[in-house]
Amino acid sequence: MDFFQCLPLDKARDRIAGSLAGVTVAPETVLLIDALGRVAAQDLRSPEDLPPFSRSTVDGFAVRSADTFGASETAPAFFVVIGEVFMGQAAPMELAPGQAVAIPTGGMVPAGADAVIMLEYTEQPDRQTLLALKPVAPGENMVAKGEDVSAGRRMVKQGQKITPGHIGVLAACGITEVLVRQRVKVALISTGDELVDIHETVQMGQIRDVNSYALGAMLKEAGCQVTLMGIVRDCGADFIEALQKATKDHHLVIISGGSSVGARDYTVEAINALGDPGVLFHGIAVKPGKPTIFGMIHQVPIFGLPGHPVAAMVVSEQVVKPALRLLSGQSEYTEPYRVSASLGRNLASTPGRDDFFWIRLHPQGESYRAEPILGKSGLIGLITEADGMLHIPADQSGLYDGEQVKIMLTRSRE
Amino acid sequence: MDFFQCLPLDKARDRIAGSLAGVTVAPETVLLIDALGRVAAQDLRSPEDLPPFSRSTVDGFAVRSADTFGASETAPAFFVVIGEVFMGQAAPMELAPGQAVAIPTGGMVPAGADAVIMLEYTEQPDRQTLLALKPVAPGENMVAKGEDVSAGRRMVKQGQKITPGHIGVLAACGITEVLVRQRVKVALISTGDELVDIHETVQMGQIRDVNSYALGAMLKEAGCQVTLMGIVRDCGADFIEALQKATKDHHLVIISGGSSVGARDYTVEAINALGDPGVLFHGIAVKPGKPTIFGMIHQVPIFGLPGHPVAAMVVSEQVVKPALRLLSGQSEYTEPYRVSASLGRNLASTPGRDDFFWIRLHPQGESYRAEPILGKSGLIGLITEADGMLHIPADQSGLYDGEQVKIMLTRSRE
Repeated sequence: MDFFQCLPLDKARDRIAGSLAGVTVAPETVLLIDALGRVAAQDLRSPEDLPPFSRSTVDGFAVRSADTFGASETAPAFFVVIGEVFMGQAAPMELAPGQAVAIPTGGMVPAGADAVIMLEYTEQPDRQTLLALKPVAPGENMVAKGEDVSAGRRMVKQGQKITPGHIGVLAACGITEVLVRQRVKVALISTGDELVDIHETVQMGQIRDVNSYALGAMLKEAGCQVTLMGIVRDCGADFIEALQKATKDHHLVIISGGSSVGARDYTVEAINALGDPGVLFHGIAVKPGKPTIFGMIHQVPIFGLPGHPVAAMVVSEQVVKPALRLLSGQSEYTEPYRVSASLGRNLASTPGRDDFFWIRLHPQGESYRAEPILGKSGLIGLITEADGMLHIPADQSGLYDGEQVKIMLTRSRE
Repeated sequence: MDFFQCLPLDKARDRIAGSLAGVTVAPETVLLIDALGRVAAQDLRSPEDLPPFSRSTVDGFAVRSADTFGASETAPAFFVVIGEVFMGQAAPMELAPGQAVAIPTGGMVPAGADAVIMLEYTEQPDRQTLLALKPVAPGENMVAKGEDVSAGRRMVKQGQKITPGHIGVLAACGITEVLVRQRVKVALISTGDELVDIHETVQMGQIRDVNSYALGAMLKEAGCQVTLMGIVRDCGADFIEALQKATKDHHLVIISGGSSVGARDYTVEAINALGDPGVLFHGIAVKPGKPTIFGMIHQVPIFGLPGHPVAAMVVSEQVVKPALRLLSGQSEYTEPYRVSASLGRNLASTPGRDDFFWIRLHPQGESYRAEPILGKSGLIGLITEADGMLHIPADQSGLYDGEQVKIMLTRSRE
């Protein structure tokens, strides 16, 4: 299979998106404290004004701002202090002109008042008398009812991933439960006669199943609920049985290793045997990751990924993750953030193919130097050093040492 | 308290780092599948060579490369095929000069062979005979034993956060359990007579406790195990009791709201009352976040954060998170990644103070436009729009519309 028979990356993504149109996991209600990182299944609007009453942002006196106009140290404005507001309590009084009320930071501004004058700009000759040494503008030193969030305002958009900031604002207006999308349930099947699980003893000629663990971790990091189905031998019947079992209880199935020459045939046959529409493409113009398979068994998307862990991780990042976002109802496809860096060496790339390189970033002044992590296909030792990925699109033939490039971050720094 | 009495941010961080020298949470052993995101408590080295035997990377024939020198389509090299290697099985034969063995991708290269010739560059006039139409170099189309990871190589460094790539390489060499640092146990106490929990009914003058939920989510995202201790009234005795309880079972305690004027005094008194060395600073030259308190009760760091959620989140990001990294034994302090952006408006800043602005990033061509999220202190509604933070250091007096700035990412894009 050469690259001319392969589907370009953008077409592959389009075909996946088309197949998943309308296929979204069901919603479920979770407690607010469990909503972090989940995808909102509906718009979340504030049921009330925030703050629910006007609050002072300083320690001082609530007044009618008009009464302070023209006040100065030499000609202070004069007020009668009619009481005090206590934290956490209603302000029962109503201010008439010329009256003031003592108020702490966060206290409720009483009716009639429209500003707060700070303690340091006042004098009190006696407990009933207040001198204001400065004017205050209407609304000064207070947050008005509904100024932070007005009743009915959308705080979280359907399809957004819920962040700590969202949790804060939802708590502020008393939302204790949230309707979110279920975690996407992913089944991982490894194939290959040479594979053994990490808990087993390796015989000569065998190697351990890396993909179940590395891809499992990537998917967990992306918020999925992962089932490791274990290793299936390269054999038609076992394969079909495993795949059937996986599609029953999961939203997405990944078969890794099943895309090498012999196994690819089993994978394609099994997907086609089990349901409509079956295989939708096999082979994408991406390096590494060419022998990638995509199909649908009824409503369940199936990916066949290369057996080489490094290639499987690239395809997961570039092809599987966009599918996960669609399944979980994320409203917009947003590329990962990119940092600018200066490329550390020449990189060749074949036109007509999207090339991806794992990159290590080294701080360099205000920016970064991007060091491509090179090595034979299948070497996994160096991937632990990667901070991100460099994409050379199909219409470019390579990049030069020192060129400014954009690196997609695949992990955070903390 | 004015800014001249406040500790500069860098000095505050230094004081925290000095206080936490040698204070690291204990290690524990976890299964490999549970190690994602945890901090390695020791260097992890490969107990064996990877791959454990030389493997073919193509379908073809294992040969001695010397036997192919000068081979071409017109003058092919001639081999006797002495057998076949099967996937997942040892290669029992040993090649003599002039011999070849059929081998699949991933198969074990037999003794005596030092290269593999791809199927497409061969012809087989009969089952015992092979013609090689091209020479192969020593090591070509194979990965030698130990070429990926040699026995004893360090795969994860003590103090690194374990990534999916790490999990992959640890799986590859059969490591099923990992020694990691315990999750940092954090107790969150909210203070304020005006606060009620989100599950309670709000009376006039009261507001809901936002910080327990927003900070709790931030800390969970950072890998902590969070205990919500609930709301403590602004009163000396209750306060001391709650703090004592919190320090007993946690590695770090955060009191939020306890740094406003009256409550700050309780917090300082309580920290000093409970143990050495007590309060180490109160007041930092940071906006927002000035009234931040830091102390140690024996080996437990205590932070007093502003009650305003927006300020509390800035301080958590800039001051608490570095402390968490130290406690969890992360080996290096790495700033979050920064993306370049063009500032969307003028921003004033006071020299002598570190200013932080929440930023919304808008894609703009190959880069971003940074829109500062402004608003009165305490407004939380807009923070849900933030993608990152802009830092204006103490030695700058502001930034201009259109200036190139670096935005610290506070959330990932997915």
